[in-house]
Amino acid sequence: MVNVVILGTGNVAYHFINGFKSVKDVDVVQIYNHTPRSLEIFNAYDTTTQVSELKTADLYLICVKDDKIQEVAKSIPFSAQAVVAHVSGSVPLLKTHHRDAVFYPLQTFSKDKAISFKDLPICIETEKQSDFDVLRKIAERLGSKVYAVNSKQRQELHLAAVFVCNFVNHLYQVGNDICAQKNLPFDILKPLIKETAEKIFTKTPLEAQTGPAKRGDDSTIQRHLDQLKDSHYKDLYRYLTTSIQKLHEF
Amino acid sequence: MVNVVILGTGNVAYHFINGFKSVKDVDVVQIYNHTPRSLEIFNAYDTTTQVSELKTADLYLICVKDDKIQEVAKSIPFSAQAVVAHVSGSVPLLKTHHRDAVFYPLQTFSKDKAISFKDLPICIETEKQSDFDVLRKIAERLGSKVYAVNSKQRQELHLAAVFVCNFVNHLYQVGNDICAQKNLPFDILKPLIKETAEKIFTKTPLEAQTGPAKRGDDSTIQRHLDQLKDSHYKDLYRYLTTSIQKLHEF
Repeated sequence: MVNVVILGTGNVAYHFINGFKSVKDVDVVQIYNHTPRSLEIFNAYDTTTQVSELKTADLYLICVKDDKIQEVAKSIPFSAQAVVAHVSGSVPLLKTHHRDAVFYPLQTFSKDKAISFKDLPICIETEKQSDFDVLRKIAERLGSKVYAVNSKQRQELHLAAVFVCNFVNHLYQVGNDICAQKNLPFDILKPLIKETAEKIFTKTPLEAQTGPAKRGDDSTIQRHLDQLKDSHYKDLYRYLTTSIQKLHEF
Repeated sequence: MVNVVILGTGNVAYHFINGFKSVKDVDVVQIYNHTPRSLEIFNAYDTTTQVSELKTADLYLICVKDDKIQEVAKSIPFSAQAVVAHVSGSVPLLKTHHRDAVFYPLQTFSKDKAISFKDLPICIETEKQSDFDVLRKIAERLGSKVYAVNSKQRQELHLAAVFVCNFVNHLYQVGNDICAQKNLPFDILKPLIKETAEKIFTKTPLEAQTGPAKRGDDSTIQRHLDQLKDSHYKDLYRYLTTSIQKLHEF
């Protein structure tokens, strides 16, 4: 049995707590947050607002904001006997404990949308190989896919994630705006959005690229620029078109 | 029974021909293309390279490149008795026939990837209401979702599709490049890409927006800019960050 204390109650904490419910041999023995209110929804668990009351555990999983990780980690007692792992994409492996680790799930989490841990990549970094094995087992019990990723690589992954998640979502927003301006429902674009994402499971993005920029279809590009009234979206269109054409050598 | 002649043999033609196979009451009676080679894979059908040999049909579905649509449409005989529909997102309703129409499937098609017509949006425009009804029935038999979309709206949809499909795919490419530079497999990003697309089925893109730009997390933004060695990707990062912050009022 691996006893786990979860520190933090945000989206990632929430989904790990839910995920661990169905994993035998992993037991969430306590949830910590400094404000009582955020612990209310976890009343089926032992909870605390005091680091001094933290239970002994095999794993402390730090799911707090990036700039609070160091502080929370330092306050954990028993650290020499436990693995202390944070779950952040952009914070390096801590150097405060003997058994520091990173357990970074590469996914976008929202509280009100269920997440499947099946096949979800979990990037693990540890100082000791034996700790890596412990964390790998936990990840595998969740059905996740384990990658050994060091701090430098993880920072690059986090950057890549900004492009394929945050920036992509913003382009969905632009599509939404264009539809809204012409009284068209955004729903009409959703099957296209889904298919575009699914395509890269069978093709590389370079192979999957289509559209006027790729074809060098200047008259369509010009008409699109004329259609865009918002000068900011116009710039964005121009910029992304140039970026595609650099790769496809126009 | 609706007899259909397909003009063109590209991706859209290919998928319509396949889709119609399972639709009773719709019969593809002929496939036209001006080059014999492109007709070879359709040898189960009656094919022709000559417009003068086109069969009489209820519907001529023009699936050729945008700049050839007008020319192909003009060459179709029997037009007064048939619906002549093109399938393009960016070409307006033709004015060459009495029964001109548009039958535009809003999706990205590749020859080597099966497409489900179920729930796929098909945007229909016709001069006559009776022709709209004919095309709606065909789309519904394919399991597709029918939208009445006029030429002006369709041009906007086509523009929106460039943002949510072509430009989004390019951002996948940037993610792929960042991974490749650090010897990380692109596979590691795929569950995130999938989830990001799925999220907008339950949230608006504005609600779904996450990341350093949205949070106003300047230190992460600066570190990401430092990480990007390619000045072009650096500009793209900066531009998209500004664009998100304009919407989220930083």
